[in-house]
Amino acid sequence: MSHQKIDIFDTSLRDGEQVPGCKLNTEQKLIIARELDELGVDVIEAGFPVSSPGDFNSVVGISKIVKSAAVCGLSRAVRNDIKVAAEALTYARKPRIHTGIGTSDSHIKYKFKSNREEILVRAFDAVSYAKTFVEDVEFYAEDAGRTDNAYLAKVCEVAIKAGATVLNIPDTTGYCLPSEYGAKIKYLKDNVKDIDKATISCHCHNDLGLATANSIEAIINGAGQVECTINGIGERAGNTALEEVVMILKQHPYLDCDTNINTKRLFHMSQLITKHMGISPQPNKAIVGANAFAHSSGIHQDGVIKRRDTYEIIDPADVGVTESAIVLTARSGRAALAYKAKNAGYDLTKLQLDEVYLNFLNFADKCKDVNDSDIHQIVETSKVYREIKSA
Amino acid sequence: MSHQKIDIFDTSLRDGEQVPGCKLNTEQKLIIARELDELGVDVIEAGFPVSSPGDFNSVVGISKIVKSAAVCGLSRAVRNDIKVAAEALTYARKPRIHTGIGTSDSHIKYKFKSNREEILVRAFDAVSYAKTFVEDVEFYAEDAGRTDNAYLAKVCEVAIKAGATVLNIPDTTGYCLPSEYGAKIKYLKDNVKDIDKATISCHCHNDLGLATANSIEAIINGAGQVECTINGIGERAGNTALEEVVMILKQHPYLDCDTNINTKRLFHMSQLITKHMGISPQPNKAIVGANAFAHSSGIHQDGVIKRRDTYEIIDPADVGVTESAIVLTARSGRAALAYKAKNAGYDLTKLQLDEVYLNFLNFADKCKDVNDSDIHQIVETSKVYREIKSA
Repeated sequence: MSHQKIDIFDTSLRDGEQVPGCKLNTEQKLIIARELDELGVDVIEAGFPVSSPGDFNSVVGISKIVKSAAVCGLSRAVRNDIKVAAEALTYARKPRIHTGIGTSDSHIKYKFKSNREEILVRAFDAVSYAKTFVEDVEFYAEDAGRTDNAYLAKVCEVAIKAGATVLNIPDTTGYCLPSEYGAKIKYLKDNVKDIDKATISCHCHNDLGLATANSIEAIINGAGQVECTINGIGERAGNTALEEVVMILKQHPYLDCDTNINTKRLFHMSQLITKHMGISPQPNKAIVGANAFAHSSGIHQDGVIKRRDTYEIIDPADVGVTESAIVLTARSGRAALAYKAKNAGYDLTKLQLDEVYLNFLNFADKCKDVNDSDIHQIVETSKVYREIKSA
Repeated sequence: MSHQKIDIFDTSLRDGEQVPGCKLNTEQKLIIARELDELGVDVIEAGFPVSSPGDFNSVVGISKIVKSAAVCGLSRAVRNDIKVAAEALTYARKPRIHTGIGTSDSHIKYKFKSNREEILVRAFDAVSYAKTFVEDVEFYAEDAGRTDNAYLAKVCEVAIKAGATVLNIPDTTGYCLPSEYGAKIKYLKDNVKDIDKATISCHCHNDLGLATANSIEAIINGAGQVECTINGIGERAGNTALEEVVMILKQHPYLDCDTNINTKRLFHMSQLITKHMGISPQPNKAIVGANAFAHSSGIHQDGVIKRRDTYEIIDPADVGVTESAIVLTARSGRAALAYKAKNAGYDLTKLQLDEVYLNFLNFADKCKDVNDSDIHQIVETSKVYREIKSA
């Protein structure tokens, strides 16, 4: 595989917003869209215009202010949806219509009460109609994760024939394992006629905790676009986390892929989404969680103090976090205590440290955390305090 | 691969507890250990006995009360650590000592200021010494994820020769991609002499969001034990989430692996950890998040109402969640509204629904969520209310 630029398609404002209780108003969406543009995403999915007047207006507003990214509107394979999406995108510098239909037997039979042949016709019609409005048309094969590969390849061929520029292969239910999803992308790459006329896009859900891994396997097997959200927000267990995919590509140079993302803005972007949507990533969320770079166990703290890359694979500054916060707990060892004590102005000998450490353990066994200000109390109430020199 | 029972090694009380601010006291640890035993985990890592008197006492207490699971104590490759761990495990029905040392060049050079030959000697000595106390000795090769495979194989051979029953291959920094980590396990399976005398264990960290995927790849390639925590808690970005691995194995029967976990207790277990550790999984956490089974978009709600498995790959009852809560927002479609209205006592015709839906959209565009109690207001303030029949 030669060097490849991977397109980042952010759907925080569409699929990501589908979190119960987290609806954003138009003003908030404009603020976020502007920041996504600054972050360097290639495509902003701004909404589903036909779904409500509020969503329509948000897509119009975002289209007007975004400078670099393409702006995308979602639609079902329904002419009115597509027409309304096109109207909402009138002011976009790079408009994209995203249209599609369910292709798994479950969706065809129970959701559409249709058959495989009819779905092919509807797919062709939807893409063709969207092409009358814009050049850039992305087609989604909903529930592609559970769609038979041979039929999925036919759907893709039809979409390409109708002019689709991007083929979105969603694992809608988050069921695929990385090896399965990667194999599906490879199958399409190997079997769809004229596949190189379109970019394959992966769109993964995290119901089994595999969205990020599935996206990476898709890239390794030929996908050129990743659909994702900041903090992995989204319906149910959410979507692929943008920050995880971007940092995996950055930290594994041998994959020979890169993105346009300015990673130093990732932490800020995460905080902005948290603020406006009102849901925080858990403290142990990869890359952007409050503890993502916090070492608390003694063995690890000792290692990090000796040499940072013993336990840290990402320099926190690379994602906009200013330092890896070392937090003292009863699991912390002497090295971390000595480090913190030195920062607080106490230069301890090994024997002094043994004494102070006992005092520290008693303190830490009772309290949840030991703050920097507690260090003074711990040192000064230890038996050896009178001998201790200032650092 | 023939049918395989995968051992679940829970380290919520050891590696999981290393979250700044989340230290558990002994009483809390006993409550959690009892529930882990009920859940059906095979091994409970109860603590790091030499690290503090509080931890030592917790391991003693847990050893006394656990009925089915093995109880494990951590130690460095240091004789005193091992001796103290053995003491703490005296009362365990199935005691296991977990000992080991860093094996990557970074750890050997910067943390131990040692060399590869000396590390082999220390590994052999630690396992041999632990065997003088207990039969079941697990060896960890810290930072195995970044350890050269050929050297790692040598370390494993030495540990097996000394009597190790389990070989833990941690991706300590959470750096490996699933394909890399799977290949590492396969390499050991293929190249370590007498590898079938020991069980290979995977221990993954989630710094790049790949812990679950890496664990699954390890199982596919021959690992027989997974080290994990409830809710994926742990230092930095945390450990592999127990609930994710267990449900992936359950929902992919063709992998032909199972565990002893009673999955109906997963949600309860997650809530218990949240309560005692004081950190909640984010709403979109896979399997156990508040929204894991909540559908809010119209397209999805319509599908779920027609047939649940259109969008749900797990029956919420299988993990102890009583129903998939459908939440109405401005993204919800007519089908979800009609469903909720019917539950609230209103049987709407299609024309009535169109009217009520407009009212609903105005309401939902202004409010964040639409609760069940709001349905009455929405229906009763709509123009067609006088015509609407009760369901």
